[in-house]
Amino acid sequence: MNGKIRIAIAGHGNLGRGVEAAIEHNPDMSLAGIYSRRPAGQITPRQTETPVHGMEQLRSHADQIDVLILCGGSKEDLPQQGPELAALFNTVDSFDTHARIPEYFAAVDPAARDSQHTALISAGWDPGVFSLNRALGEALLPDGATYTFWGDGLSQGHSDALRRVPGVAGAVQYTRPAKDAINQVRKGGRPDLTPQQMHLRECFVVLEDGADAETVREAIVTMPHYFADYETVVNFISAEELARDHRAMVHGGFVIRSGTTSPGTTQVMEYSLKLGSNPEFTASVLVACARAVHRMHGLRQFGAKTIYDIPLGLLSPRSAEDLRAGFL
Amino acid sequence: MNGKIRIAIAGHGNLGRGVEAAIEHNPDMSLAGIYSRRPAGQITPRQTETPVHGMEQLRSHADQIDVLILCGGSKEDLPQQGPELAALFNTVDSFDTHARIPEYFAAVDPAARDSQHTALISAGWDPGVFSLNRALGEALLPDGATYTFWGDGLSQGHSDALRRVPGVAGAVQYTRPAKDAINQVRKGGRPDLTPQQMHLRECFVVLEDGADAETVREAIVTMPHYFADYETVVNFISAEELARDHRAMVHGGFVIRSGTTSPGTTQVMEYSLKLGSNPEFTASVLVACARAVHRMHGLRQFGAKTIYDIPLGLLSPRSAEDLRAGFL
Repeated sequence: MNGKIRIAIAGHGNLGRGVEAAIEHNPDMSLAGIYSRRPAGQITPRQTETPVHGMEQLRSHADQIDVLILCGGSKEDLPQQGPELAALFNTVDSFDTHARIPEYFAAVDPAARDSQHTALISAGWDPGVFSLNRALGEALLPDGATYTFWGDGLSQGHSDALRRVPGVAGAVQYTRPAKDAINQVRKGGRPDLTPQQMHLRECFVVLEDGADAETVREAIVTMPHYFADYETVVNFISAEELARDHRAMVHGGFVIRSGTTSPGTTQVMEYSLKLGSNPEFTASVLVACARAVHRMHGLRQFGAKTIYDIPLGLLSPRSAEDLRAGFL
Repeated sequence: MNGKIRIAIAGHGNLGRGVEAAIEHNPDMSLAGIYSRRPAGQITPRQTETPVHGMEQLRSHADQIDVLILCGGSKEDLPQQGPELAALFNTVDSFDTHARIPEYFAAVDPAARDSQHTALISAGWDPGVFSLNRALGEALLPDGATYTFWGDGLSQGHSDALRRVPGVAGAVQYTRPAKDAINQVRKGGRPDLTPQQMHLRECFVVLEDGADAETVREAIVTMPHYFADYETVVNFISAEELARDHRAMVHGGFVIRSGTTSPGTTQVMEYSLKLGSNPEFTASVLVACARAVHRMHGLRQFGAKTIYDIPLGLLSPRSAEDLRAGFL
């Protein structure tokens, strides 16, 4: 076990469980422990030998942890935990409220810097590798336009909105990229597209006994903000079908840069993800980022960082020499 | 003009001309000059005011150039120029003989390090952004397989081979990715595939007067190494069609990582390029990399570097603050 990067997990929801799974695929890491606000008896780690502790014990375990991965939510947990824990640990988190990232960075940066820690914020896929590709697209093709399409993906917020419609017993919503729009962009076009033109919304709904399908459909497709401005398809299914076919937290999307390097010469770069499990992929990114954070801390690069600050070779378990010889 | 990054170009073939074009799209840069072994009268810069010099004058212009982009070939030019010029300038090159990269790195690194310069080697798209995605795929999805498909792309080497066949007056060859193979990988499969199974070769051939089409076709499809092991399609066209339809140096390809994060959960990431001009896109990458090299030199990161060593935010003209606020 000597020499392994000791990772700990703060928060054990879907993301925290994904981090547990991801660590098993990275032989240069070990899982030092899971920290949760829930009683230890309610946490079932994937490996029975993994220590489970209360969140309040973190402070006294600082010398046992190289990098702490924060798996709490962006709304309630991270705004408090991020700055607090970056003062005690090297951290990685997936803070994903895009509009509040500058404010969050400003809170985490001094905490990490003053205590000589490295704190990577807003890692994952969006924000994360998608952000990387948006910046890369503009840098490589300055004369161009960037498009981010999401889907096919299960949207938690829209699924919740469906479940609040009277007459709905259960529901999920998938965001799907509009194929026509993607094809226009892939061909090197630079259309002006609104999010509504770039995406469709497909709903799978279980009706309550006696509910009228047409009334429910009408309530959904006219719902302001969530559905009214989008092309929305509503499918009615049974409770059994919902349970059987719609449990996976699939997601994904496309970042496409369409640009021109000389008159008439178009260049298109595209990065896409097709994810069988959104939280497990996000967790895999966080774990690779933990490796980079550990190395950057060793290089005394203290303070809050984002994925833009990481030389990507540091994400790989391979040495720079191996990467040059085998991957370049 | 003050404060702009002063770029110079060594070598004025297709790549050097692409660098000229790319600099025009980057307002934080200026073109300090073009250096060539050819007589100045044979060089026609895109902008008439661009100074043109002989290669031997480079040494005395060191204080006028922030980053020198080496646009020579990997076979003859770079093995000599790379180490020599990295002792005098910050450099960027596209050395692309994959098997000799470690040796080339070992020659450039001490030259750059001893003279306190920053020398980025093997930038472009492959090696370059494709290499980045191969390493990223493995780091994010350690349990998986990576596939690099090339095409649709004009292959210079294979076109040259066609032109050596008796009876051929002119020809081009396109490498095309095999759609079936791509689809297998995109679905999350991990097939064992040889390069021959992943690519087709499509030839467009102009016959010499009196040459027999069947004899030429047979000579092509049985040519060892180049065509014999591949599915090869030969189309005969007129000299006019060749000149009209096959002048663009199109290229591109796909890097696909297919992985698993837990039993039964597949995740697929894909990076693809569809390039209207291979040299112009490569040049665009080199120019963005020159910005990063200039900044890394300012941070006293001396020696030979590869794309794995660059925090990608440094490629962007935007500040770290802007990137966090607008692109993350």
